[in-house]
Amino acid sequence: ENRARMLISCPDGPGLVAAVSQFLHEHGANIVQFDQYTMDPEGGMFFMRVEFDLDQLDDRLSNVRADFAAIADKFQMEWKLYPLKQKKKLAIFVSKEDHCLVELLWQWQAGDLDAEISMVISNHADMKEYVESFGIPYYHIPVTPDTKKEAEQKQLEIVADKVDLIVLARYMQIVSPALISPYRNRIINIHHSFLPAFVGGKPYAQAYERGVKIIGATAHYVTEELDGGPIIEQDVQRVSHRDNVNELKRIGRTIERVVLARAVKWHVEDRILVHQNKTVVFN
Amino acid sequence: ENRARMLISCPDGPGLVAAVSQFLHEHGANIVQFDQYTMDPEGGMFFMRVEFDLDQLDDRLSNVRADFAAIADKFQMEWKLYPLKQKKKLAIFVSKEDHCLVELLWQWQAGDLDAEISMVISNHADMKEYVESFGIPYYHIPVTPDTKKEAEQKQLEIVADKVDLIVLARYMQIVSPALISPYRNRIINIHHSFLPAFVGGKPYAQAYERGVKIIGATAHYVTEELDGGPIIEQDVQRVSHRDNVNELKRIGRTIERVVLARAVKWHVEDRILVHQNKTVVFN
Amino acid sequence: ENRARMLISCPDGPGLVAAVSQFLHEHGANIVQFDQYTMDPEGGMFFMRVEFDLDQLDDRLSNVRADFAAIADKFQMEWKLYPLKQKKKLAIFVSKEDHCLVELLWQWQAGDLDAEISMVISNHADMKEYVESFGIPYYHIPVTPDTKKEAEQKQLEIVADKVDLIVLARYMQIVSPALISPYRNRIINIHHSFLPAFVGGKPYAQAYERGVKIIGATAHYVTEELDGGPIIEQDVQRVSHRDNVNELKRIGRTIERVVLARAVKWHVEDRILVHQNKTVVFN
Amino acid sequence: ENRARMLISCPDGPGLVAAVSQFLHEHGANIVQFDQYTMDPEGGMFFMRVEFDLDQLDDRLSNVRADFAAIADKFQMEWKLYPLKQKKKLAIFVSKEDHCLVELLWQWQAGDLDAEISMVISNHADMKEYVESFGIPYYHIPVTPDTKKEAEQKQLEIVADKVDLIVLARYMQIVSPALISPYRNRIINIHHSFLPAFVGGKPYAQAYERGVKIIGATAHYVTEELDGGPIIEQDVQRVSHRDNVNELKRIGRTIERVVLARAVKWHVEDRILVHQNKTVVFN
Repeated sequence: ENRARMLISCPDGPGLVAAVSQFLHEHGANIVQFDQYTMDPEGGMFFMRVEFDLDQLDDRLSNVRADFAAIADKFQMEWKLYPLKQKKKLAIFVSKEDHCLVELLWQWQAGDLDAEISMVISNHADMKEYVESFGIPYYHIPVTPDTKKEAEQKQLEIVADKVDLIVLARYMQIVSPALISPYRNRIINIHHSFLPAFVGGKPYAQAYERGVKIIGATAHYVTEELDGGPIIEQDVQRVSHRDNVNELKRIGRTIERVVLARAVKWHVEDRILVHQNKTVVFN
Repeated sequence: ENRARMLISCPDGPGLVAAVSQFLHEHGANIVQFDQYTMDPEGGMFFMRVEFDLDQLDDRLSNVRADFAAIADKFQMEWKLYPLKQKKKLAIFVSKEDHCLVELLWQWQAGDLDAEISMVISNHADMKEYVESFGIPYYHIPVTPDTKKEAEQKQLEIVADKVDLIVLARYMQIVSPALISPYRNRIINIHHSFLPAFVGGKPYAQAYERGVKIIGATAHYVTEELDGGPIIEQDVQRVSHRDNVNELKRIGRTIERVVLARAVKWHVEDRILVHQNKTVVFN
Repeated sequence: ENRARMLISCPDGPGLVAAVSQFLHEHGANIVQFDQYTMDPEGGMFFMRVEFDLDQLDDRLSNVRADFAAIADKFQMEWKLYPLKQKKKLAIFVSKEDHCLVELLWQWQAGDLDAEISMVISNHADMKEYVESFGIPYYHIPVTPDTKKEAEQKQLEIVADKVDLIVLARYMQIVSPALISPYRNRIINIHHSFLPAFVGGKPYAQAYERGVKIIGATAHYVTEELDGGPIIEQDVQRVSHRDNVNELKRIGRTIERVVLARAVKWHVEDRILVHQNKTVVFN
Repeated sequence: ENRARMLISCPDGPGLVAAVSQFLHEHGANIVQFDQYTMDPEGGMFFMRVEFDLDQLDDRLSNVRADFAAIADKFQMEWKLYPLKQKKKLAIFVSKEDHCLVELLWQWQAGDLDAEISMVISNHADMKEYVESFGIPYYHIPVTPDTKKEAEQKQLEIVADKVDLIVLARYMQIVSPALISPYRNRIINIHHSFLPAFVGGKPYAQAYERGVKIIGATAHYVTEELDGGPIIEQDVQRVSHRDNVNELKRIGRTIERVVLARAVKWHVEDRILVHQNKTVVFN
């Protein structure tokens, strides 16, 4: 494959689209998909995602990067340029509830999730055999209030330099700033409510108590503020007075699975740009 | 028409369905629709809605009611029994934004809202001509911080004994306990967010700020707690990073219209039973 | 457990609800859930589903059945009465695409599908190891144009008297009247389109060709008319011009999984009554 | 306002994005929104929509157009370039059902539909007073089997050179090729079903008969094939066995209103490109 992807964020200004497209054209690249969004015509932010084909990509990529640096400097761009075949490496964190993990593994096996699942880390041993049957390493790192700090240290060592994205697939521990900081905008959590409603623990019990007529789930990047990070995707399902808390959990599991899988898919396809506490999703 | 409706709430116990259906059968009524819900098999609450046909309903209704009192006493029922042709009388409160009022009037004119619209009350004069063109009285009662108390007093006098339901169709004033108390579970408000997210003012601005991917609207009965009353209906619509606050408002207007109209329709068709802070909706 | 379920269909008439609820009350049963629907007040059909608790159900069930026969006769009822612990036995038919089978097995393992999966039958060997890892028998019965008749004969022998419901979980063979007839309203198929649009083969290719903006899936009982049987459940997802046929298939797989799982769940919980070519679903 | 919009369709080829963006940059235009879609990387079609600001647009527009012709020729482009302030002129055709007309007028009055409503044409006189109260001319042109040809001739004369878009807002007559031909891809119809299901007359009765669990509406451009033109937008709503044909119609009216209004909005904002029998919608 000779296909590559480019992601750009910068202050808006005249000539941005022309500069990038002209650059690619002069280097012989053929644009396959081009998405652009300007947050606010006056003094806002500019976001761009381009997919292009370039003959002999492997040989020429470092040159293209070097040449593009001049444009990037001129427009104060934050940018990334990857060949598509360089797949993202994932670590999936899970506790006892398996539905999100099972969904990600199923989509990955079906070829719908274009990534490498490098490892699964869990504070429980339950899923070890299942995960290893896919040939994926499983690290069982128990967490107790006393050992939380050490456990996180161990997690950090295991993932260090080995993964591009951490997916909290119903991982029921609050991750600490020590993990968040090096993985800024690279940890995706699934929260089992329609955020910002029902932050924190037991959201389905909260939803039942409040008597809502629709429940939801939210995939977001993890920040230091609990359930407060940039929202990537949400979806919902209608419920009724007949649905008790267990029924809400059952209905919710399917929403959680679908929402998390979409968010992870978009991340590994570089469709998400983060600005302040919000996401731009080119999908 | 010889059709009537019965609504019952009581503690659950054996023989409830049998007692009511036997009673109706013995009085010659033919059940047309029968909905029942028990909140919790063990020691919970029982809710029932029955529609039935009874020959010479007008002549016999007071007898049926008197006879039923014995059953109601035995099972400690709260109950209502209406002939369908006794339509509910509505007062619609509105401020400047007209979309919810227009929707209710349109549905009413199309025959989809089986109620009587007795009056419109507004703190602005804008919609006077439009409302009066339907032959509906329009009361313009300006509200300022200084005159709020008097204004509410005037509202109370106007609606007293004349309306069964007050609909706050984007009425942008907080109604006081003096109005809420006599109209407990008979004031429906449309809140322009997916409650309990974004309580209070400017919910679309809050939603934009938080970067949600879905917005919603909520129809609820008004209680003393702001936006905290029993939820009747909610609906949502997907949005994206491209939608600014004005666009959210535009998309939201259609959700608000639809959600409020459904809630009002269900209320006037006696499909809603309230228990504590939640609704049972037989729809 | 002393809980049982009763399903009734009969011509509408006065006293039906009273007769059934009185009967249950006199036999000491406590109604837990009661759903009723009359198709048309004038001369229509009456459908009822009751869940009730009855002490010493096992000992008394045959008596209850015998006693009820008199009422059933009087009102010309078609009826069923089961103890809840008598779980339905399923045969799942599958071809190469595994997503619907995986979903059913996952929901079953999670305790969300209250049935017994007695066997999986496939015209391919692909899923043998996976299915058998759950302790479920797997019958590989290849089908070619020449052997179709024999293959169906073999299928019939295997399922005979052993299963209550056949689920076609993306089984890509047309089943013959010989199989349909004994399993009338007991074979559920998932069709990968929003029926009646795109009947027959390659519905996603048809949907792409027509340029629809929403795709769907339909679970229905199988009749002799291809994709023409009573619809149980449908759901949809928005798509856009950007989605090619493969993308439609990918999006569709999740709709198919969810829709089929709901239909099967409703069937095994006796929530579906069939009348002519339509379903009444009490959910 | 100095804002303009450009729409381009052409065979895909290298350098297209660069050529257009470079052209705009050199002419001093500042791109505000840029959407692009390539149907198929190999030998497919290329579609583009650009919004840009250009100082002194009025004075310079004809020069920009003239200069762009060279690029358009080179890449065999079909293209349009409009100033945003040049609003599209609409003729709305309506019969007796008023809900779609009322919705369009309401959205137009609310400022959500950025167009000019030049006239309403109807085969009935019912809505005359209502429409004229907005200051919009109303042409009552009765249609009978005998006068259909003359009626259409009259319609053609009235709209000729005066309108850019014809909206069939539940206009219950089949329009003839004589009208379609000059308004190719400029006549939008709302069909009250989820096409391609239930083509032709009485779609709600057909939907009821088939027992579908979801109903929908479809906005499409009108072609010579009944209900067969390019689909612009669709939406759906869940229904149940409890909903009879009248209830389906009632629920459907809101879907129809919303779907038609979206399609018209997208057309007047030049968000729709038609290729063969499909639409590309940049929204």
